[in-house]
Amino acid sequence: MAPQYAPSLRSRLAPLLLILQTGFIIIAALCFETKETNKLDRKPFLHYYPEFQDVNVMVILGFGFLCTFPVRYGFSGSGFNLLVAIIATQWALILNGIDSWYNTKIIRIDLKSIIKAELCAVSALISIGSVLGKTNPVQLTPIALLEVTGFVLNEWLLQTLLKVRPPNSIMLLHVFGALFGLMLTWILYRDGSKQGFEKEKYDEKSGLFSMLGVVFLWMFWPSFNSVLVDDRTRLKAVCSTYLALAVSAVTAAALAVLSSPRGKLNLIQMQSCILSGGAAVGVSVSVVQQPWEAMALGFTAAILSTLGYRYLKTHLLIAFECHDTCAVLSTHGLPGLLGWLAQLVLQIKDCDDHTVAVRFAVFHICTLFTTVSLSLSMGTLTAFLLKWKFWRPPQNKKCFDDQAFWEVFTHKSQRKKNIRNDQNYFRESH
Amino acid sequence: MAPQYAPSLRSRLAPLLLILQTGFIIIAALCFETKETNKLDRKPFLHYYPEFQDVNVMVILGFGFLCTFPVRYGFSGSGFNLLVAIIATQWALILNGIDSWYNTKIIRIDLKSIIKAELCAVSALISIGSVLGKTNPVQLTPIALLEVTGFVLNEWLLQTLLKVRPPNSIMLLHVFGALFGLMLTWILYRDGSKQGFEKEKYDEKSGLFSMLGVVFLWMFWPSFNSVLVDDRTRLKAVCSTYLALAVSAVTAAALAVLSSPRGKLNLIQMQSCILSGGAAVGVSVSVVQQPWEAMALGFTAAILSTLGYRYLKTHLLIAFECHDTCAVLSTHGLPGLLGWLAQLVLQIKDCDDHTVAVRFAVFHICTLFTTVSLSLSMGTLTAFLLKWKFWRPPQNKKCFDDQAFWEVFTHKSQRKKNIRNDQNYFRESH
Amino acid sequence: MAPQYAPSLRSRLAPLLLILQTGFIIIAALCFETKETNKLDRKPFLHYYPEFQDVNVMVILGFGFLCTFPVRYGFSGSGFNLLVAIIATQWALILNGIDSWYNTKIIRIDLKSIIKAELCAVSALISIGSVLGKTNPVQLTPIALLEVTGFVLNEWLLQTLLKVRPPNSIMLLHVFGALFGLMLTWILYRDGSKQGFEKEKYDEKSGLFSMLGVVFLWMFWPSFNSVLVDDRTRLKAVCSTYLALAVSAVTAAALAVLSSPRGKLNLIQMQSCILSGGAAVGVSVSVVQQPWEAMALGFTAAILSTLGYRYLKTHLLIAFECHDTCAVLSTHGLPGLLGWLAQLVLQIKDCDDHTVAVRFAVFHICTLFTTVSLSLSMGTLTAFLLKWKFWRPPQNKKCFDDQAFWEVFTHKSQRKKNIRNDQNYFRESH
Repeated sequence: MAPQYAPSLRSRLAPLLLILQTGFIIIAALCFETKETNKLDRKPFLHYYPEFQDVNVMVILGFGFLCTFPVRYGFSGSGFNLLVAIIATQWALILNGIDSWYNTKIIRIDLKSIIKAELCAVSALISIGSVLGKTNPVQLTPIALLEVTGFVLNEWLLQTLLKVRPPNSIMLLHVFGALFGLMLTWILYRDGSKQGFEKEKYDEKSGLFSMLGVVFLWMFWPSFNSVLVDDRTRLKAVCSTYLALAVSAVTAAALAVLSSPRGKLNLIQMQSCILSGGAAVGVSVSVVQQPWEAMALGFTAAILSTLGYRYLKTHLLIAFECHDTCAVLSTHGLPGLLGWLAQLVLQIKDCDDHTVAVRFAVFHICTLFTTVSLSLSMGTLTAFLLKWKFWRPPQNKKCFDDQAFWEVFTHKSQRKKNIRNDQNYFRESH
Repeated sequence: MAPQYAPSLRSRLAPLLLILQTGFIIIAALCFETKETNKLDRKPFLHYYPEFQDVNVMVILGFGFLCTFPVRYGFSGSGFNLLVAIIATQWALILNGIDSWYNTKIIRIDLKSIIKAELCAVSALISIGSVLGKTNPVQLTPIALLEVTGFVLNEWLLQTLLKVRPPNSIMLLHVFGALFGLMLTWILYRDGSKQGFEKEKYDEKSGLFSMLGVVFLWMFWPSFNSVLVDDRTRLKAVCSTYLALAVSAVTAAALAVLSSPRGKLNLIQMQSCILSGGAAVGVSVSVVQQPWEAMALGFTAAILSTLGYRYLKTHLLIAFECHDTCAVLSTHGLPGLLGWLAQLVLQIKDCDDHTVAVRFAVFHICTLFTTVSLSLSMGTLTAFLLKWKFWRPPQNKKCFDDQAFWEVFTHKSQRKKNIRNDQNYFRESH
Repeated sequence: MAPQYAPSLRSRLAPLLLILQTGFIIIAALCFETKETNKLDRKPFLHYYPEFQDVNVMVILGFGFLCTFPVRYGFSGSGFNLLVAIIATQWALILNGIDSWYNTKIIRIDLKSIIKAELCAVSALISIGSVLGKTNPVQLTPIALLEVTGFVLNEWLLQTLLKVRPPNSIMLLHVFGALFGLMLTWILYRDGSKQGFEKEKYDEKSGLFSMLGVVFLWMFWPSFNSVLVDDRTRLKAVCSTYLALAVSAVTAAALAVLSSPRGKLNLIQMQSCILSGGAAVGVSVSVVQQPWEAMALGFTAAILSTLGYRYLKTHLLIAFECHDTCAVLSTHGLPGLLGWLAQLVLQIKDCDDHTVAVRFAVFHICTLFTTVSLSLSMGTLTAFLLKWKFWRPPQNKKCFDDQAFWEVFTHKSQRKKNIRNDQNYFRESH
């Protein structure tokens, strides 16, 4: 095949996915089990179902359509996101269950375990945002597997060594995913990035598709932050997230106008910054008590996120050759770090005992240190693995282009060809 | 009016819909009743509400936007789907209630009866997928009415003669709808279909709209399969459906690449095949016990669906002159049959007694036989009815074209015309 | 800056939003409180959560994407709707809480108070539909604030003076919002409106985006009407709304074909009229008992709404120079008035005692009178405030144009410019 064509996916993507999926089914046959509750009422089911569907919508639709803004990359943006999400979820279901498998030889599948697996998958979805348009689906599969492995390992370390409770440890996914993604895109840097790729732009319609994804993330974020929280504090988590998102959306609009050279709004910047309040409150969800704390957090997150988008993103590209397509640093990384800091401050503020406060601070800093170092090292490892020629990444001129991976000729011409083939087939076979 | 224009809908669609709707209201005035529960707590309400809304979203948004992929047929795809869905739902509400009306003279309207009616409407929505773009809304109305009649009749036969319980009998809607649709499109075959219609193609944006519909179907399919299931097994139904859909999405991607001549993905094929797991598990929902069974079912369904899309669809067109626009055979028909087979195999495997197994097999085969024959005969009947010139189907060059049914000139010119008319009106009347 | 450019938003939008948001945070710090329930079960949480999310989806996504039909106004349509919605919701949270603050010095924030605030915000979203495309976000902010103030004042008057119970008083938002919007657009009339603005048109894709918004409004309207209703009658509210919407959709399609000069459907008209049943049932939700009543109401609402769209809208423009972009009069105003009338008739019909009936009629007429007069006077006040040159509305040729408010050049060129700026920065600073 001439070099101007994108390399065919057939010899690598198909075997990879089939082997992986067969492996998952075999593991499921050996370990998975869905146990029904004995009680007749469906309370335990109702308990999670609406939030389960909301998280599902965020993972599949929200993140998927968020990535459709490049004008010729909509099919890939939404399609590859779905692929990564379900591979990562299945893998996380298995990894999260190792502990229980070790004790009881079964991995229980229920709504809670699927939700936890989907949250782990979100860390991978954040990371692939940073390399959006510059990778092929063959590369995205190992990213999904390795990132989820790293994230589950991190969670296990935090829970066993530092005694961090589940919602807090899982919510660090924003920091983990963003830094993992930054390492990926830094090491996989392409020369064309500074000049910009030919098709790395958005138009009126593709911008609206990604607006759709953002709006779904925005609307269902309260479910995302509250789903793993205790029943007693769930209402608080929902209200805090809602208020923080509202404040960060207003603030993001004001700052977008302030930071723009012509005093206009910028759609992609807005999409990145209106979500920042959700990530910040998510990380600090267990300590935010008062509505105004959530609102102030949303305000600060929007400021940080705007600064990150307008200045840090460009400087990373110029000074460090690190091209962060979806601005995951300013959408998830910085607000996540802010949430971590808020948790530290609010927790210490409430402590009367000086020793307990210091002890908490040390533990809390260790939490962040573990997450950051594991994220950066796993990111580096994955990136070097992906530099291998075997994966045949798309050429620069095929970046941000669906034509590299999708049959984009029309139904009609396709059918004509099929008919011709079939007629030949009929002619020859009769 | 010159023959190059699409025939006006006024003299046929408007009276048809108005008479139908007035009839429905009169029947409602005579029979419908919404009874409140006496208890103060809203448990029976909560019981179904989230799933009710999920099914609602699948029926209206999912199937509607699934049909927007033809580049100039988006208004019709989503609009006519809404029309058919609500006519079919109202009609199914009435038909499903005949039994209770016979005994008590009232038809109870509550969330469960609306959900059941919407599921019946889905069989009609599947069928109209096969004739998408080649019919007008005047034709779609009798399709909706006759199909729902046939489906409710089939369900009644299965329940009274063969003692099939509700979720099993209703879930055969995939098989019923697909075969009904195939008969329709076979008998209503148009000469232009082999060459392809001028506007039967998709572009980057219309493909994303239909991706949106597919993603909603994919996300909410667990609600669809579980909504009529007993409370005790509802969790199992949700998890099985989720896993089957996940597996069929990964498998569909692998097989799309394998079966494509250039080793690329195909959007419309993917959209058709990633849903196959949901239909297969739906039909066999009462017997799938283990997660791995659901996953294996999803795997097989994706293989069948891909083979159906790539080979059977074209052969049907060439050899049988049967043009299945939305590939309902491979999306719903084949996975539905697979689910039926899986139900047979899993049920017999669990049987210790040989006589019971044989007895079940005979009953189960009768179930399919009844459904298939009723579906094919009602489809034939409907199709011959629609061949009548009275319905004035769109010409070949107006197929897949919104301009045949929708005012597509702009707001502006419309207003100018209205203003001119009105000014004349003002001038004359003063 | 030359006059052909749209005025920069920087000096007005950014300070306005920042001051407002800081003010809200300060008020929140002084008054807001989220109290957890003491009980361990999450029943009070579950009670509202699914409906809360449905209302959220309607407010943010439904109304937002409803406004994306102008071909070059999608970013503004969805973005400004989000902005107005969250400003209005925060303001309504504060205003609704004044009463409780007066007594207890705290304003309780929970799901119910957020839902109530979002419903108040909907009245503002309806009004901005009438001036869509002809205002800038700086003008939309005072509209949001003043309209919500008026609406909360109206609700307070109705509840204290006329003893109207909450769901009835809040559901008058359709009438309030529509009349407020009409006054706005009448007083802010622009000379270009009769000829039509250059970009006031829709195409195949932008029409589908607004179809998406409409479909979400249509699907979740049962949640909207039932969320504030007593538990005992909630099921009735859901079923009534569903049936009314179904009937109004079928009727709207029939009437669209009848009223069109070429016997075709009209997308924007359909979008306006299929929703009318929801508004009509919403206003009369407490008295609609039987399914057929809801269906007859949906039927009548669709007729009124179609007449309003086809004839009243144009006459308003010609005769009164009142350009109602989104046809809020026919979507919300007329069906709302119909619902008010239905409530009167149904209530009186059920009364045995003549004195009670007359008494109710007088009170009911006073309710409407208060709402209409407050709505018209607040609308007039707001409109005259907005006529002030300070707000710098967009010029006629920038109406319905995203370029007036959004950076619409591509990612690529933006990055080049940023890089150039940054390189200068680097050069100068080193």
